[in-house]
Amino acid sequence: MAKRAKIKELLKSTAFGTEVTIKGWVRTFRNSQFIAINDGSTISNIQVVVDFNNTDDALLKRITTGAALSVTGELVESLGKGQTVEIKAKQVEILGDCDAEKFPLQPKKHSLEFLREIAHLRFRTNTFNAVFKVRHALAFAVHKFFNDRGFVYMHTPIITGSDAEGAGEMFRVSTLELGNPPRTDDGAINFKEDFFGKETNLTVSGQLEAELAAMAFGEVYTFGPTFRAENSNTTRHLAEFWMIEPEVAFNDLVDNMDLAEDLLKYVIKYAMENCAEELEFLKTRLLEEEKQKPQTERSELDLLAKLNFCLDNEFERVTYTEAIEILKNSKANQKKQFKYLIEDWGADLQSEHERYLVEKHFKKPVILTDYPKDIKAFYMRQNEDGKTVRAMDILFPGIGEIVGGSQREERLELLEKRMQEMHIPAEEMYWYLDTRRFGSAPHAGFGLGFERLVLFVTGMTNIRDVIPFPRTPKNAEF
Amino acid sequence: MAKRAKIKELLKSTAFGTEVTIKGWVRTFRNSQFIAINDGSTISNIQVVVDFNNTDDALLKRITTGAALSVTGELVESLGKGQTVEIKAKQVEILGDCDAEKFPLQPKKHSLEFLREIAHLRFRTNTFNAVFKVRHALAFAVHKFFNDRGFVYMHTPIITGSDAEGAGEMFRVSTLELGNPPRTDDGAINFKEDFFGKETNLTVSGQLEAELAAMAFGEVYTFGPTFRAENSNTTRHLAEFWMIEPEVAFNDLVDNMDLAEDLLKYVIKYAMENCAEELEFLKTRLLEEEKQKPQTERSELDLLAKLNFCLDNEFERVTYTEAIEILKNSKANQKKQFKYLIEDWGADLQSEHERYLVEKHFKKPVILTDYPKDIKAFYMRQNEDGKTVRAMDILFPGIGEIVGGSQREERLELLEKRMQEMHIPAEEMYWYLDTRRFGSAPHAGFGLGFERLVLFVTGMTNIRDVIPFPRTPKNAEF
Repeated sequence: MAKRAKIKELLKSTAFGTEVTIKGWVRTFRNSQFIAINDGSTISNIQVVVDFNNTDDALLKRITTGAALSVTGELVESLGKGQTVEIKAKQVEILGDCDAEKFPLQPKKHSLEFLREIAHLRFRTNTFNAVFKVRHALAFAVHKFFNDRGFVYMHTPIITGSDAEGAGEMFRVSTLELGNPPRTDDGAINFKEDFFGKETNLTVSGQLEAELAAMAFGEVYTFGPTFRAENSNTTRHLAEFWMIEPEVAFNDLVDNMDLAEDLLKYVIKYAMENCAEELEFLKTRLLEEEKQKPQTERSELDLLAKLNFCLDNEFERVTYTEAIEILKNSKANQKKQFKYLIEDWGADLQSEHERYLVEKHFKKPVILTDYPKDIKAFYMRQNEDGKTVRAMDILFPGIGEIVGGSQREERLELLEKRMQEMHIPAEEMYWYLDTRRFGSAPHAGFGLGFERLVLFVTGMTNIRDVIPFPRTPKNAEF
Repeated sequence: MAKRAKIKELLKSTAFGTEVTIKGWVRTFRNSQFIAINDGSTISNIQVVVDFNNTDDALLKRITTGAALSVTGELVESLGKGQTVEIKAKQVEILGDCDAEKFPLQPKKHSLEFLREIAHLRFRTNTFNAVFKVRHALAFAVHKFFNDRGFVYMHTPIITGSDAEGAGEMFRVSTLELGNPPRTDDGAINFKEDFFGKETNLTVSGQLEAELAAMAFGEVYTFGPTFRAENSNTTRHLAEFWMIEPEVAFNDLVDNMDLAEDLLKYVIKYAMENCAEELEFLKTRLLEEEKQKPQTERSELDLLAKLNFCLDNEFERVTYTEAIEILKNSKANQKKQFKYLIEDWGADLQSEHERYLVEKHFKKPVILTDYPKDIKAFYMRQNEDGKTVRAMDILFPGIGEIVGGSQREERLELLEKRMQEMHIPAEEMYWYLDTRRFGSAPHAGFGLGFERLVLFVTGMTNIRDVIPFPRTPKNAEF
């Protein structure tokens, strides 16, 4: 049999009259004559025209939504609307039947909530085909961006004996018997008998290991899964998510901001150039979804306009101290519209404040820098003022924090002092401190939450809809 | 200050007379005059010449192996051997000192075993710089290969409620109190109170989820970490390793073999083209290492010759049944040189048999197909003979199995029957079976162990030396 052609290629072809074979799944079958077939290579279907007078009735009955077919026929010019080619079928073979009454995906609009429950089948819808094509393009663009600049991709460990930030609840990884672990003489659990001979958890970040590598390769990045055992049932949190963490020797905070802004613009542009069809579809989807909202809650810009806006404008760089002034003097604060009123310098910013800065005040992506040291991690470089650290968070409209990073504290004494203050055990972290003992150098890096990036670019509104099989509290299906 | 130039670029430059700034780490400092500096961008160092008569003694003393420096000076033609450019220093700044007496890396050859204990510093050696550059190139090549062919990259879940193969010991993931978990009325552990509301483990493979996606996108691949809680302390096993798993709708076993062979040749070629300097270094390293072995145990081909041989020859495709005949009739079997003698059809092949086939008999990579069903997983497509399945393993010289795959059983009844025979709970796997219920289609895929690939291409001999921070029994350091 002829090698199968991909529908994506055929739809661009003008080789009318040639015989082709396609394989794919039936989306619809109208008038016992027109089959819309999709093979996943594009969100567009190809139309197959069946000569129903000369086709076995039993076969026609098996052409149902969801069935897998192999079709051989002639590629012809289409007279139908919205398509330039179609296939005049010579031979239709059923590869796999699909009982229309039992198949959960009907040729109609399903809610995203329903599709989440059948995540193993939702890839077969246009929406999820588009979302995961964009996700793929963004992932590839990340690798291409760093590879082209000479960064080294590091696979930092998933199972770890250390807690990078001293923050974040962790998942324990163990092979000990859960209800009956071996004990030491004093009754404590004997982790020496666990698989790794010590207590281990799933990583919350690859940053500390990436720093070790940056002190040798100069420029490195990670792109791997990270975990938080926090009971956050929100539209922006996952227990298992993918993170990109570049780390660059000799970079300061300004270099770090430049790198992050370049990266974000590069991958968004790449997706727009390589997923034009998918993004057009997602733009329309979002417009439809927003029609159900009150006018005031709808986006000012459509999806493509929003992405273009992001490319065309420089991110606003503002210090935490400046941001606090803006927020304190804002109408929202004075009229007590914020749930958490901003009164004093030092307050941790809530989502409502970040959204105010990005969506109301600056109306563009914002990079907030130089946060109070007491609300940030131990490894951030301390400023001369003794109060703030060289932190940076990038806030995106509709998403909030998409990047968190900093210049790192490269001065051994200051780092050790800060670890002591924050009760980080220095002995266990000897390997991290060694980078400051032996040829320390200024360096900086950040973490980009990959699903939040996909959320932003696709215009989806729930993070569960941009990862194939989301892991959230009480949910690890498939 | 001038932006730093990368040493990799400068070594190729002929812009003599221009002022440049480099930042990097001291490898050696000879005669108070010649500093060899490395910044990680290449395994080659650049030579900096210091005017020691006009340089402060205190500064000269701080130029020690491992110290981080910033050097500004004039790029000049070098008269030294093995280099074309060097830098005539105008200004040398110490970014970070390095106490030569305490620094574990001395300017001499260290054993790989010793370097494994200081894995956080071993990146700063030539060997590990080369190994991880090659690892990076191979990872990027994998993504490029699939992206260019229209495959969709899927991030399959790391935490899973299912065990893909019914084989492989797993790591439990839990937030319940170890030693005192909540219990149900009948005394069993109450996993409903665990984070995910059920028992969860770290994934051993993303294949089953990739199959779901292939039934929608046509062509997908995974590239993520996988885990085995097996107490295997060998040079080829890790508890945490990265795997690449493509899955393609409508592919049969021959397509599958073609894809795997194309992939392997593509990524090896890519590494040879993009890491020529690193591979040349690793070739020499391996020759040195093998000098310590008896002549008979040395490789017949050097590293580059071996890689080229792999590119220039078609992999030998042999059925299991043919392989058993070859082994049974081999001198090694007849003279009882095998530890496990091959007597009957049905025997599982051991490493010694695989190596005999690859290294002695065919002397090239071998694809073994159509294994007895009883030694393979439940999801492999059954042959008409009722005895064998459409499995394929790719065996590489010196490595053994590098790829394992199969055409999948797409026929619902046969799959259900096989699951029953092998005690795989069908109810929990309803989502997997749904792909066979709704528009099933032939499909095939395989898993490529990434570290084994890196091992092969770099010529390293212990898998712990090709992943940044290896996880093995009793070891989860850093």
